[in-house]
Amino acid sequence: MTSTLPSSFAALTNARVIDLAQPLKRGIPVSPNHPGFEMALLRRHGDMMRSDGGSAANEIIVLGGHVGTHIDSLAHVSHDGKLYGGVDATEVVSNHGFAALGVDSIEPIISRGVLLDIVAVRGAPLAPGEEVTVQDLERAEEMAGVPVREGDAVLIRTGWARFWDQPDVYLGKTDGAPGPGSDAAEWLASKSPVLAGAETVAFEQIAPGRGHAILPAHRILLVENGVYIVENLNLTQLAEAAATEFLFILAPLPIKGATGSPCRPIAVLPSQS
Amino acid sequence: MTSTLPSSFAALTNARVIDLAQPLKRGIPVSPNHPGFEMALLRRHGDMMRSDGGSAANEIIVLGGHVGTHIDSLAHVSHDGKLYGGVDATEVVSNHGFAALGVDSIEPIISRGVLLDIVAVRGAPLAPGEEVTVQDLERAEEMAGVPVREGDAVLIRTGWARFWDQPDVYLGKTDGAPGPGSDAAEWLASKSPVLAGAETVAFEQIAPGRGHAILPAHRILLVENGVYIVENLNLTQLAEAAATEFLFILAPLPIKGATGSPCRPIAVLPSQS
Amino acid sequence: MTSTLPSSFAALTNARVIDLAQPLKRGIPVSPNHPGFEMALLRRHGDMMRSDGGSAANEIIVLGGHVGTHIDSLAHVSHDGKLYGGVDATEVVSNHGFAALGVDSIEPIISRGVLLDIVAVRGAPLAPGEEVTVQDLERAEEMAGVPVREGDAVLIRTGWARFWDQPDVYLGKTDGAPGPGSDAAEWLASKSPVLAGAETVAFEQIAPGRGHAILPAHRILLVENGVYIVENLNLTQLAEAAATEFLFILAPLPIKGATGSPCRPIAVLPSQS
Amino acid sequence: MTSTLPSSFAALTNARVIDLAQPLKRGIPVSPNHPGFEMALLRRHGDMMRSDGGSAANEIIVLGGHVGTHIDSLAHVSHDGKLYGGVDATEVVSNHGFAALGVDSIEPIISRGVLLDIVAVRGAPLAPGEEVTVQDLERAEEMAGVPVREGDAVLIRTGWARFWDQPDVYLGKTDGAPGPGSDAAEWLASKSPVLAGAETVAFEQIAPGRGHAILPAHRILLVENGVYIVENLNLTQLAEAAATEFLFILAPLPIKGATGSPCRPIAVLPSQS
Repeated sequence: MTSTLPSSFAALTNARVIDLAQPLKRGIPVSPNHPGFEMALLRRHGDMMRSDGGSAANEIIVLGGHVGTHIDSLAHVSHDGKLYGGVDATEVVSNHGFAALGVDSIEPIISRGVLLDIVAVRGAPLAPGEEVTVQDLERAEEMAGVPVREGDAVLIRTGWARFWDQPDVYLGKTDGAPGPGSDAAEWLASKSPVLAGAETVAFEQIAPGRGHAILPAHRILLVENGVYIVENLNLTQLAEAAATEFLFILAPLPIKGATGSPCRPIAVLPSQS
Repeated sequence: MTSTLPSSFAALTNARVIDLAQPLKRGIPVSPNHPGFEMALLRRHGDMMRSDGGSAANEIIVLGGHVGTHIDSLAHVSHDGKLYGGVDATEVVSNHGFAALGVDSIEPIISRGVLLDIVAVRGAPLAPGEEVTVQDLERAEEMAGVPVREGDAVLIRTGWARFWDQPDVYLGKTDGAPGPGSDAAEWLASKSPVLAGAETVAFEQIAPGRGHAILPAHRILLVENGVYIVENLNLTQLAEAAATEFLFILAPLPIKGATGSPCRPIAVLPSQS
Repeated sequence: MTSTLPSSFAALTNARVIDLAQPLKRGIPVSPNHPGFEMALLRRHGDMMRSDGGSAANEIIVLGGHVGTHIDSLAHVSHDGKLYGGVDATEVVSNHGFAALGVDSIEPIISRGVLLDIVAVRGAPLAPGEEVTVQDLERAEEMAGVPVREGDAVLIRTGWARFWDQPDVYLGKTDGAPGPGSDAAEWLASKSPVLAGAETVAFEQIAPGRGHAILPAHRILLVENGVYIVENLNLTQLAEAAATEFLFILAPLPIKGATGSPCRPIAVLPSQS
Repeated sequence: MTSTLPSSFAALTNARVIDLAQPLKRGIPVSPNHPGFEMALLRRHGDMMRSDGGSAANEIIVLGGHVGTHIDSLAHVSHDGKLYGGVDATEVVSNHGFAALGVDSIEPIISRGVLLDIVAVRGAPLAPGEEVTVQDLERAEEMAGVPVREGDAVLIRTGWARFWDQPDVYLGKTDGAPGPGSDAAEWLASKSPVLAGAETVAFEQIAPGRGHAILPAHRILLVENGVYIVENLNLTQLAEAAATEFLFILAPLPIKGATGSPCRPIAVLPSQS
């Protein structure tokens, strides 16, 4: 940041910005329920040369709203036909997507972020299919030294981000993936955070061989409590920086009526000076 | 923002956040050089009901890297075969996109933002095809009361954002669109901002009937000076708030090798208390 | 055709094959109700060179099921919630598309084709927004010298194909497009053809400025009579060959549950020997 | 076929038509080098109801040119930078795809088809990774009772089509897939067929664990001899019908400049009467 910030925001001037997103490219892990990521250059330099020697390159991109690091809107999951707040899931949907609770209804989020580092709690990355428990969360909160409060962005680290380049492992096809069980989801919801994030594709405990049959954390957070979910985070750098409390910024793409949006959340840490 | 921010960032607590992005949906104005925007729900609630009553909806999205509010990376434009810094445009390109200067090389941007409100300078929105001149920029800078400095995000308002819902007008097919000429682009570049943004699809002065034949501002900013360009901004609210100096935040999607990325830039204004 | 055909099909050996499809590429006319056509090379030769000197190029394609020359399946249009045969339109649809009446239910079509050349009847191409009447069809049938029979593919020429390279004219945005009115559609349906085809995007009379508000021919043919519709045909060469009766072949892509499929129908004319 | 065909083509009237294509839907086997297949309904019935009770459904489709049953054009593969006929691969390519040898240069194919049933020769489906040899082809030709001639469509059956619903097996990720080796490809090319088809994704012998490192049959057929390749055929029904010689019809989509096109080839067998 070379810019001199307005005096009100001087504290940000030498702050450290940590990127929490995984890179988007062909071949990244994508749940089979969602379209994969494709990017192809439509034009390359030299394909169309302007009279003055100028030329432009561009691309076409295909992806699902839940591909890469992304946020789930409240339109994403229903239970017994109802979305958050009792909204009838079929009444608000059309070819324009969701008229209510879509990702375009999510204002840019600037909140306190709290890292709950379960890897630190356990002393090791979680195993495939392992459950993140209430005890894990409470111990992580204690280690963080900051209680989770209303409006926070709570980020749960399991160490799973390291498998991003191994899609089969990451997706947990055979052995599952670690994540919060129902109790942990209830604990999170009880704190009224603005969102809860994780390093896996599903923000759920996916037991080995069980697949995505039932997704209680989605029900508890999205449908019952109106808490957004962020998936496929990379919390490695944040943990390495020993950051527990930070400024969290996430601005989803304003896609009308979509159930999710790829995004690039960031954590901002106070200057070390 | 209900969250209590870390004390270092307390200034942000009651700050006002202004969304600078246009909404993404079918039918938005897209240059014919780029793929349009498509979003279709793949699953709707009820299509697949889980045993516990849960159901999920999701979508497929197709778009160009330069669709909606977006940032141009330095890989977007070349001149005489060279990108910024003399990089040979053909040497760094492959099916993986650009190995250098792609949008994934743009770190999340947190900088001072400055609004150069040419509508205020002129007393009226600019006409189609009208040139934003150096005099316009200098008068706007004077009105803003803040000199543009190195690293700033400079946003140029022409009032064009109001045509977003009229794609033919917005694209300037017959009458052109207003924007900076070569001199204005040189003036901007001389200030070494991190980026320059505008409310039009091309950032450029597009004279009536001239089409996008020559794009000098792109050459000057991207190729010769390494200044990113942001297009299709909506600066209406920012002007209404009489904001001239603010915190500007933009985090492009980390799409490996792409020449641009849709994004949702925001302006943060100090609390009015 | 250099191949010596099996003796049963010897009649085809020197037959003339006429392509009835319009080319697919960026910028072709597409109704705003449908996704446009995009094709971008994913890999170009040299991007990935195999150890033996081999290299492959390929592409990504995005399109609607009703883009370019295409066939409408019976799942495409409903009336008062019912598809052909009284099938409830909402009961057969899911994220897998249509479980009944989708384009995958259309067997490859090999039938007699009959050209009803309204341009020849009128002595000139039809004007924008002009109605093809029952009298037109009857006179064209008389000129063809062959009565339309059950199972035929009936192709109606208006001369509109010549506007394919002028998308705004072709789509009839301001002046409309020529096509069969309700009476003509009823006449066609009464003959029980397998399909009816036209050179326009909508197989309807689109009166100037009226848009696609009501589409009676679609209702009559698809919903009430189970007759497929083929749109965006190019019948120019067929008319130039003075072909009135011919072998018609159309094999839609077997896209599970889709409402339409791009296709390349052909007419085969007997050898002139 | 209920239609009474023109007298020249009467032989086709009660002919049997056999579909040689695999169905297109999400989840079908696609080589990782190519974009997968996606189809999502954009509109469902009822989303937009016209004033008269009419409603339409449609879709968006994303796919590679080499997805599902498809034909490879001569632009698909190069060797030492050259396409068939010594065409320089980089000179004919642009953002419009290939100016020469693209799939749009393939005229609709109506030829004699010959089934070389290697399953019948061997008495069993081929094993993963197994080579189809010259001896196999010669014995199959003998069993067919018809010598392969210039201009024929030669279809090689290995029994692999039965794995279409098991993508990992079909793609041969671990164990490979059966197909012609170099010698068999040379034998095929020496007959000057218009095309050679197979039931696998790559036409080639893919030895276990070897991947698609070298593709000699593509080089021999496409680059050196100008013989098109058709992949992902389903020849099961053709074999069950004991068809050896038949009418073969394939009309690729006329996609300007593409290297391949999905298609729905058919075999037509003489009436059994």
